[in-house]
Amino acid sequence: MPQLFTVLTPQEAWSRLEPHLSPTKRVEVIPTSEALGRVLADDTSAPVDLPHFPRSAMDGYAVRAEDTHGASESQPAYLKVVGEILMGKPAVITLSPGETALIHTGGMLAGESNAVVMVENTHEVDTSTIEVVRPVAKGENVIQVGEDMARGEALLSRGSLLRPQDIGALLALGITDVSVFQRVKVALIPTGDELVTPEDEPGPGQIRNTNAYALAALALQAGAIPLRFGIVRDSSESLKEAAHRAMEEADIVVISAGSSVSTRDMTAQVINTLGEPGVLVHGISLRPGKPTILGLVDRKPFFGLPGNPASAMITFEIFVTPSIYKLSGCNQLPKRCEIKARLTRNIPSAPGREDYIPVKIEERNGELYAEPVFGKSNLMFALVKADGIARIPIDRAGLAAGEIVAIRLF
Amino acid sequence: MPQLFTVLTPQEAWSRLEPHLSPTKRVEVIPTSEALGRVLADDTSAPVDLPHFPRSAMDGYAVRAEDTHGASESQPAYLKVVGEILMGKPAVITLSPGETALIHTGGMLAGESNAVVMVENTHEVDTSTIEVVRPVAKGENVIQVGEDMARGEALLSRGSLLRPQDIGALLALGITDVSVFQRVKVALIPTGDELVTPEDEPGPGQIRNTNAYALAALALQAGAIPLRFGIVRDSSESLKEAAHRAMEEADIVVISAGSSVSTRDMTAQVINTLGEPGVLVHGISLRPGKPTILGLVDRKPFFGLPGNPASAMITFEIFVTPSIYKLSGCNQLPKRCEIKARLTRNIPSAPGREDYIPVKIEERNGELYAEPVFGKSNLMFALVKADGIARIPIDRAGLAAGEIVAIRLF
Repeated sequence: MPQLFTVLTPQEAWSRLEPHLSPTKRVEVIPTSEALGRVLADDTSAPVDLPHFPRSAMDGYAVRAEDTHGASESQPAYLKVVGEILMGKPAVITLSPGETALIHTGGMLAGESNAVVMVENTHEVDTSTIEVVRPVAKGENVIQVGEDMARGEALLSRGSLLRPQDIGALLALGITDVSVFQRVKVALIPTGDELVTPEDEPGPGQIRNTNAYALAALALQAGAIPLRFGIVRDSSESLKEAAHRAMEEADIVVISAGSSVSTRDMTAQVINTLGEPGVLVHGISLRPGKPTILGLVDRKPFFGLPGNPASAMITFEIFVTPSIYKLSGCNQLPKRCEIKARLTRNIPSAPGREDYIPVKIEERNGELYAEPVFGKSNLMFALVKADGIARIPIDRAGLAAGEIVAIRLF
Repeated sequence: MPQLFTVLTPQEAWSRLEPHLSPTKRVEVIPTSEALGRVLADDTSAPVDLPHFPRSAMDGYAVRAEDTHGASESQPAYLKVVGEILMGKPAVITLSPGETALIHTGGMLAGESNAVVMVENTHEVDTSTIEVVRPVAKGENVIQVGEDMARGEALLSRGSLLRPQDIGALLALGITDVSVFQRVKVALIPTGDELVTPEDEPGPGQIRNTNAYALAALALQAGAIPLRFGIVRDSSESLKEAAHRAMEEADIVVISAGSSVSTRDMTAQVINTLGEPGVLVHGISLRPGKPTILGLVDRKPFFGLPGNPASAMITFEIFVTPSIYKLSGCNQLPKRCEIKARLTRNIPSAPGREDYIPVKIEERNGELYAEPVFGKSNLMFALVKADGIARIPIDRAGLAAGEIVAIRLF
């Protein structure tokens, strides 16, 4: 008979686990060029000024701004061209009053120059003279030393998840190695007497184990290293043995429980016997995912997820994915990738329960529509046919056709 | 002096290149379990029924539905419990009228049973008798053979970008290997007399090459294999030699041009000398990114991107990323990851030009705000400080404070 448990809201459930999640202590130094998607373990600041010399922001002529004052089409300023500043070379030219030098975007300003006139605002008079037809202010079209990044300025803080532009910025400052948190390891333990491997032909009453693979893919997407364990049969001893080994090898343990009440209870019992505090949450007002278990053993998060594939994936995204980010050292959870779309039909729900409904996104006349993919919650193909999932908030008795809803791409 | 070129809208520019982009001819067969993020090269359909036996969707009792008709709390139906159906085993029990068998979620229905009564709607009378207090219809709480996926039903089509649920679904059907398009190779050629490697200390007038690294990271995110080329100096011969080699090794060639007019023109000339049709687009009404070059040589897309880091990254995302998806075989571009936020201040623009502005997303009182990160377009740190980019449509003269805008996370 089912064990009675207190059902919490998803938010309450997460708040019981979340304070216990802290970044892994294991850090490593890796080349910045290979650090995409990794999480910085140290604050970084600019070791040098960027740029470290005054650069031109335009193609044109380096000038002393005061030489251009009052210049116009009718009364141009005439300047003597004393040379060209070559890219990648120190500016060997120094301007005297009335002199200018050809400069390219990114070139180093000539000595005594303090502005750049865009080439469009000049006319060539002869090979050594130009007309300037618009005045420039001091500093105009110049990127000053340290203007992009000043030496000592805070750059990226500990806990930053590194994006392509962060890689570029670190390298621009000569930071070619970075200290990052090691990738978090997530053990995935499939359980159930009915499971066979995907390679095997299931007999009557048997199904293929697919949860360990789908959840491994979700773990990979979140930047973790998945460790797929072999199928564990519905026996406390086997499960305890596997969970114990998982605790030694991984930072997070996910048991994809059999779907029957008895095996779910077994998962809870095993988590409780492994160490303190054990099960924190057993039962969440969530569909799919009500029987989800959140636990903690010797500071490692333990999850007992429902056995049916859609429920396992959705509860993984809700609870395990943010846990991976926390343990990976992220100082904030990456922003959820959501799109807004108009519901094509009513979705009923029960107030007091948060529902997740797979939806297909369709574009009609330039507007996005979300078409619910209904089906029994344990059918796998609802998620395959869907582009994302719509959330029905806990205080709503469903969503109405025509409402604009946020769809989490999935 | 700058070469005159016809400036196209971003949409026009893309429509000149896009018809020439077709999936790579190179396919390979890989284990489904390693196919996350890969693109299917063949249509797939279900080789078997899923499930292949009638399964219970609940914990309860397998029954002949007709035995429960009229049952209620006051007038329960009494059924004889003839056994328990074990998980993962063929149902060896066959029910005679008035009989039932204990069944677990996912268990195989007993012979001659056609519905499942939820355990909540039963009472145990003694070890071999239960009361059923609610009737069930034929098929209730049962997942029929092929209900999730019927044998022969279309599953995932050629061009599908495989997600975690797709991996799970393929494996559930025993499809343990899949034919996928090979990853597309993107050559990244940094050019410029001013460039040194990130490891080198730049002298006066020099800067570190970072574009090749930041763009390599963007290519990786789009599922391609980046090939970083060494720095090429501002000479037609060197650029031609590198571009030629890149064409042999890669499917897409990206030249991150020097930022001056002369080197941009050199890039266009080199693309034109390499083969037909050469440059398709030179100049786009886009900021940053106006001098962007789109070309095609012997059916391979060639890009000349502006040299400054922010412009290079934004134009890569606009033109190279979708090209990668097309060549990778994707039958539709992955949905853009966008969030809606309210602008904190006016952003001016010029009508007839599409602008991309880095913004920082802030949450205040539960609402999202987008704060523009202003700065000269070639400063790198605008993108580091930003969470995404806002697009100002080509027909707008800017965006007003208070407007809700779509921010592409970046």
